[in-house]
Amino acid sequence: MKFNKILIANRGEIAVRIIRACRELGIETVAVYSEADRESLHVRLADEAYCIGPVASKDSYLNLTNIMSVATLTNCDAIHPGYGFLAENADFAEICESCGVTFIGPSPQAISKMGDKSVAKSTMKEADVPIIPGSDGLVEDMDDAIRVAREIGYPVIIKATAGGGGKGIRIAENEESLISQISTAQQEAQKAFGNAGVYLEKYLTGMKHVEIQIMADKHGNAVHLFERDCSIQRRRQKLLEEAPCPVLSPALRERMGQAAVRAAQAVNYSGAGTLEFLLGPDGNFYFMEMNTRIQVEHPVTEMITNVDLIKEMISVAEGNPLSFAQEDLKINGWAIECRINAEDSERGFMPSPGKIDFYLAPGGLGVRVDSGAYPGYTISPHYDSMIAKLIVWGATRDDAIARMKRALSEFAVDGIRTTIPFHMKLLNHPMFLKGNFDIKFLEEHDINNPEEFSLE
Amino acid sequence: MKFNKILIANRGEIAVRIIRACRELGIETVAVYSEADRESLHVRLADEAYCIGPVASKDSYLNLTNIMSVATLTNCDAIHPGYGFLAENADFAEICESCGVTFIGPSPQAISKMGDKSVAKSTMKEADVPIIPGSDGLVEDMDDAIRVAREIGYPVIIKATAGGGGKGIRIAENEESLISQISTAQQEAQKAFGNAGVYLEKYLTGMKHVEIQIMADKHGNAVHLFERDCSIQRRRQKLLEEAPCPVLSPALRERMGQAAVRAAQAVNYSGAGTLEFLLGPDGNFYFMEMNTRIQVEHPVTEMITNVDLIKEMISVAEGNPLSFAQEDLKINGWAIECRINAEDSERGFMPSPGKIDFYLAPGGLGVRVDSGAYPGYTISPHYDSMIAKLIVWGATRDDAIARMKRALSEFAVDGIRTTIPFHMKLLNHPMFLKGNFDIKFLEEHDINNPEEFSLE
Repeated sequence: MKFNKILIANRGEIAVRIIRACRELGIETVAVYSEADRESLHVRLADEAYCIGPVASKDSYLNLTNIMSVATLTNCDAIHPGYGFLAENADFAEICESCGVTFIGPSPQAISKMGDKSVAKSTMKEADVPIIPGSDGLVEDMDDAIRVAREIGYPVIIKATAGGGGKGIRIAENEESLISQISTAQQEAQKAFGNAGVYLEKYLTGMKHVEIQIMADKHGNAVHLFERDCSIQRRRQKLLEEAPCPVLSPALRERMGQAAVRAAQAVNYSGAGTLEFLLGPDGNFYFMEMNTRIQVEHPVTEMITNVDLIKEMISVAEGNPLSFAQEDLKINGWAIECRINAEDSERGFMPSPGKIDFYLAPGGLGVRVDSGAYPGYTISPHYDSMIAKLIVWGATRDDAIARMKRALSEFAVDGIRTTIPFHMKLLNHPMFLKGNFDIKFLEEHDINNPEEFSLE
Repeated sequence: MKFNKILIANRGEIAVRIIRACRELGIETVAVYSEADRESLHVRLADEAYCIGPVASKDSYLNLTNIMSVATLTNCDAIHPGYGFLAENADFAEICESCGVTFIGPSPQAISKMGDKSVAKSTMKEADVPIIPGSDGLVEDMDDAIRVAREIGYPVIIKATAGGGGKGIRIAENEESLISQISTAQQEAQKAFGNAGVYLEKYLTGMKHVEIQIMADKHGNAVHLFERDCSIQRRRQKLLEEAPCPVLSPALRERMGQAAVRAAQAVNYSGAGTLEFLLGPDGNFYFMEMNTRIQVEHPVTEMITNVDLIKEMISVAEGNPLSFAQEDLKINGWAIECRINAEDSERGFMPSPGKIDFYLAPGGLGVRVDSGAYPGYTISPHYDSMIAKLIVWGATRDDAIARMKRALSEFAVDGIRTTIPFHMKLLNHPMFLKGNFDIKFLEEHDINNPEEFSLE
């Protein structure tokens, strides 16, 4: 089937991104917005736009009933969920199906499987996708812990199964340390989370966050579109992404790509998805999770492959086979994305919402801007703080870095504070320039230390 | 030698374009500006900026003395002239040389040779570059005229050598008509231009303006970067350009490319240059002129070759050999450029200078904007009317057209009238969509006729 009209169940730059793809495909668009987003660019650019509730996301962008009402009343053939909000909500995908509206994404079953960490892990193990070595579930007793730790090798990490966000974690460098810590860890877990269960994992250091973009259709075809290096993170938030990864060999790329395709096939995946891996300095990589949706950083993949991922998602959702085979895909050049957020990167990334008085995005050769901002637009404190994604392409990594610095230097956003100074400093750091950074880089290097980071 | 600092002897978008390339290369920039351009973007983006005179171009952007003073006082290694103003002024290129400042362009000799129409024509003839068949100089008498016309075949065009801009032109369909018109033409030419000299040329119809981009270094290497179709013109002003040309076969592309390289080599050319040809429906092509500078429409070539022409010009001027060979160059996809001018295309392209109240250029995948405009910027009535060059890339011509229509539809320029509606209409015309248009298209098709051209 060919879609005539698509509802975009999102806001901000990703809603704008999807509207642009639809317009190029000749598909009408329906935007939805909260009361706070009346003046948003996605509302202006869509063919139709409807308010679906008040500012709180739970009452608007997460309001299944209102969104489905708009979709059916406006005769939409499909819904694109973007990222965040309802994008990985299996119930929503199922409701869409039951209402005869195509959910542009994988099946509810695939979303569910990948959304449950333990199911995802065992599914990956079966599909021969490397997972972080560790206990198979909870450790039963001290003997079990010692056996597992000997098997996977020290250091090991003891994690509370009910923990999260770095809480309830202990590291054991050797057997003695493991023995002395395991009972304490269990007692603490009981106290903190009401659940004494702990499990063991190999403690990995020097890891990069390397993710593989995959695309699959409903006919069993799946390909990968190479990797993105998203190791530059602050408190697990990605700030800069690039493709390809500066340290990946062609052989390793091939191995990771094939693992990602196996993962997709294991859950009968269709649409765009991302396999997030940890990659060690020894070239071993481990499955972290699969994001069953388009990602913020998808443009860097588009820039090096010349594939329009949003258009391909729509095509696949229409039931078409993939428009390319694995062998059609080649890496061309280098792409970098900087997330320009309304945060004061000079003061601990403090949120800086408010009105943008003057706005002029950079242009010229090799520069792409995906944004919902405009002169006079107000960045709301209620949603994410993104102002724009600045993406550049260059023939080489050095070219791309030089272009990004040029583009950042001319990006004018007056009235609020942004993360532009952070990116300028990062792009001058010798370790970044060498591609020599892991996910702990911003923990271990203080961006506010003028002896290490400078704007020039 | 490596340049440390370059003066940009221009304004507007091309000055911004050159500043961007320099910044990416780590080269400092010096902008110059007239009193009317104090608030221009090129002034803001350059490392240094100096006022060189009042609003009139002859006193500022054409003021050799003031420009050379700034260049020497600020220790510039080189001057990039952009297009227009001093770009094809051989005297200026020579003065630069004598002041020890590198002129980023070809030698004064090459500029002179190509700047003189009759010298250019005979040089091309020697280099085996096809020229429009006609009398070798002025026709001597009636017998000579008849002989030439029989040789080149009817219809022929009679042109006054002192004419120009379409004045003093007559067409003879056959010998009888030639005999009856030639004396009248001579008498009229004497009366109108004080010079009775006329010459004959074959009268060509259905011609496309197809130009070949060439790039040459100072070591004798020259390559072509394929063609641009610039047939969409109004009163000899290009309005939309695309690359490649929709009707060129690979074999013809190769022949035209080789002719262009021969032309460049015939004048020991170095730098970026363009050979403008007329291409007939029979596949014959004829030299019109060579532009010995970068052209407005160069971005479409950059988009399909991934070559940064401005950076390459700078590299070649530094004395480096070309960074690519002919066999390294491949056409990738399709690019279109629309010139967004401050003209009311709904009312005979009446100039519409003034203040831009709100400005938001389109973004997203495959969209490039080269512009000197910003919110609050005033388009001066004193210079050209360009607001922005909107360039898109697509995998196919259809993709590029769909993307351009999408980009035009979201381009917001409030406060003045623009040529955006013209481009929207043009991109909907069935003949344009088929690539079926020649240089007379806009003469023969009325853009204001709603039965032929529509915005939807």
